[in-house]
Amino acid sequence: MWKELAPIGRHAESGGYRRYAWTGADADCRVWFREQAEARGLGYEVDRNGNQWAWLGDPLGDDAVVTGSHLDSVPDGGAFDGPLGVVSSFAALDELRCRGAEFTRPFAITNFGDEEGARFGLACVGSRLAAGQLTVEKAHQLRDGDGITLPRAMEAAGYDPDAIGPDPERLARIGAFVELHVEQGRSLDLTGDPVGIASAIWPHGRWRFDFRGEANHAGTTRLVDRRDPMLTYAETVLAARREAELTGALATFGKIAVEPNGVNAIPSLVRGWLDSRAADQDTLDAVVTGIERAAREHAERAGIDLDVVRESFTPVVEFQHALRDELGKILTGRGGGDAGRAVPVLGTGAGHDAGILSASVPTAMLFVRNPTGISHSPAEYAAEDDCTAGVIALADVLEGLACS
Amino acid sequence: MWKELAPIGRHAESGGYRRYAWTGADADCRVWFREQAEARGLGYEVDRNGNQWAWLGDPLGDDAVVTGSHLDSVPDGGAFDGPLGVVSSFAALDELRCRGAEFTRPFAITNFGDEEGARFGLACVGSRLAAGQLTVEKAHQLRDGDGITLPRAMEAAGYDPDAIGPDPERLARIGAFVELHVEQGRSLDLTGDPVGIASAIWPHGRWRFDFRGEANHAGTTRLVDRRDPMLTYAETVLAARREAELTGALATFGKIAVEPNGVNAIPSLVRGWLDSRAADQDTLDAVVTGIERAAREHAERAGIDLDVVRESFTPVVEFQHALRDELGKILTGRGGGDAGRAVPVLGTGAGHDAGILSASVPTAMLFVRNPTGISHSPAEYAAEDDCTAGVIALADVLEGLACS
Repeated sequence: MWKELAPIGRHAESGGYRRYAWTGADADCRVWFREQAEARGLGYEVDRNGNQWAWLGDPLGDDAVVTGSHLDSVPDGGAFDGPLGVVSSFAALDELRCRGAEFTRPFAITNFGDEEGARFGLACVGSRLAAGQLTVEKAHQLRDGDGITLPRAMEAAGYDPDAIGPDPERLARIGAFVELHVEQGRSLDLTGDPVGIASAIWPHGRWRFDFRGEANHAGTTRLVDRRDPMLTYAETVLAARREAELTGALATFGKIAVEPNGVNAIPSLVRGWLDSRAADQDTLDAVVTGIERAAREHAERAGIDLDVVRESFTPVVEFQHALRDELGKILTGRGGGDAGRAVPVLGTGAGHDAGILSASVPTAMLFVRNPTGISHSPAEYAAEDDCTAGVIALADVLEGLACS
Repeated sequence: MWKELAPIGRHAESGGYRRYAWTGADADCRVWFREQAEARGLGYEVDRNGNQWAWLGDPLGDDAVVTGSHLDSVPDGGAFDGPLGVVSSFAALDELRCRGAEFTRPFAITNFGDEEGARFGLACVGSRLAAGQLTVEKAHQLRDGDGITLPRAMEAAGYDPDAIGPDPERLARIGAFVELHVEQGRSLDLTGDPVGIASAIWPHGRWRFDFRGEANHAGTTRLVDRRDPMLTYAETVLAARREAELTGALATFGKIAVEPNGVNAIPSLVRGWLDSRAADQDTLDAVVTGIERAAREHAERAGIDLDVVRESFTPVVEFQHALRDELGKILTGRGGGDAGRAVPVLGTGAGHDAGILSASVPTAMLFVRNPTGISHSPAEYAAEDDCTAGVIALADVLEGLACS
């Protein structure tokens, strides 16, 4: 199962994955999902927002237990972020069938579309649309780096962009959603546990900083005559790091677009994207305010026009305590070598479809140990034993929830 | 003539020109050149390196007088850098025919290919190849941002990449090359002159700085665990400005490429291009050494690997004093309102085909006033009166050289 998925969208040179929403690599991943569903005799459907579902039992029944994740990737991403959750869902079903478990609630495995937002700049588009956290109007205005709109991209991939929108009836039929994900930090590695349970997702957002100066010849324009936005961008990148250090938050400028981006041209525009996260809202507000203030001071001094636009924002997500406690009980109470040992509960700075859905559905997450903490990189890794432990834990949880 | 050329390769949104070597816009410019040549009954030819020539008199004769410039542009460049020289060349010929001037030496107008280097990163490819300052082997290895090699691009445009190489016989037949160009600074504006003569081109070059860190998730990686090359890039951009201020040189980071360039990914690679120029070689060496030293110090501290590659370099070019003095005499000695007033002689930080050719051919340049000094930008401008003054000055110079 893993072997068939592994080569899809893998870039020969970087070794990283380039599975962007509604591209050919994404379509290949979706075919893989459909084949996995059909091979297990599951009912396959695609919802109005392009999310894939594989059903065991009645899709229109109430109180369904759903598990899954996403198959798309960041640019040159790793093999585990997303796919581990989908592959583990199918593997957990196989495990439950080996155990002869009988499902007493409807059960589904999902693949949410465009989780990473690598192409259109907004994360979790599939789950946001379903949960009514992204309007159809705004979704229709999303554009990729080549100017292609989301509707055109969906159409090109064979989906109907006019069908997208909130899906409250579908979400109302879900009694519990559990997402398994590779950890994107080293907490489990430090505590020595293969699997953990999520407590909360830090509040986080993306801000676009547009620094506008004046394009001019780099070889003839005197320094005093320049309005070079690259200098103000550089000051802002360093200010972001300082603010993050001061507040214990995270702040990163990882994406940039420059116009005209010529070696011998002073830029007219430097567009930098800030990703920032913190354990609580006040800290996040403080760090972003601090960065913007520093940027404005430098811009003013250098004659640069600055626009700051918040492109996306997700408040703190506390996963449902009742479901979280139930998972803890199931995983702690089971037999085996780890019997009786409490499963660690940990927060994360990363956004997930589970975070979006948690506003509408009782939601929980399982994390699988990442020995280096590296994620969003070809070096992202989880040991085979830990992946197996993740599948068993997910199977235990699903058995506890859906087969009791 | 100007009106037909103006819309070619103009970007609707930016208003700037995107006439990159061997693209459709470039091909349209080349058709325009050929039509101008044919409309005047000139002998049209393309040399082995794709440079265009329009001949009056015997192309194989000795001691030819040649004028011209280039039609390609930087990304979102202005209308004048390059085209003003080619258009003025045809207009000067028209003026000389009106005057009934008789050519006593072979005369040609040229359009040199790929002067700006916007596509393949190396400026003046057409003249460098002809002058033997770029080997065929190196030219064949040039690649654009999409990975397309120069040979493939030339082939796609209908040219033979295997024919390129040095053209010493052709250059040996040229007795004088004069390039008219819009000034890319404000010297003429400050002295109040419509036209000036070039003294020298500053030594200048391009250096590529590759900062390599470790890609990781921007939302989960602790600051202490990061190796973020964007921070080192930012320090280097600011160091470049400081070094330039200290030495009176120019240093600019105007082009950048980031991998993976995702909002929520710490970059694995930030590649920045430095353009630096100074009035003399020692100063240029000092400023580039200072920037590289600062970059290495910051890289070392942040665990970033740094490679610095000099991608191109042009030593100081002093235009031939004899030809320069002859131009000065012609322009100062002529009648009209400016009679007897010395024409200013000025240096420039910008590279030109004339600079490349000056090693093989007696070469001179005329500059036309630029009221804002802005260049390599849609705002690049020269007043109509000054353009006319440029045409008359060029006609006077050509008459003095070729019709005496």
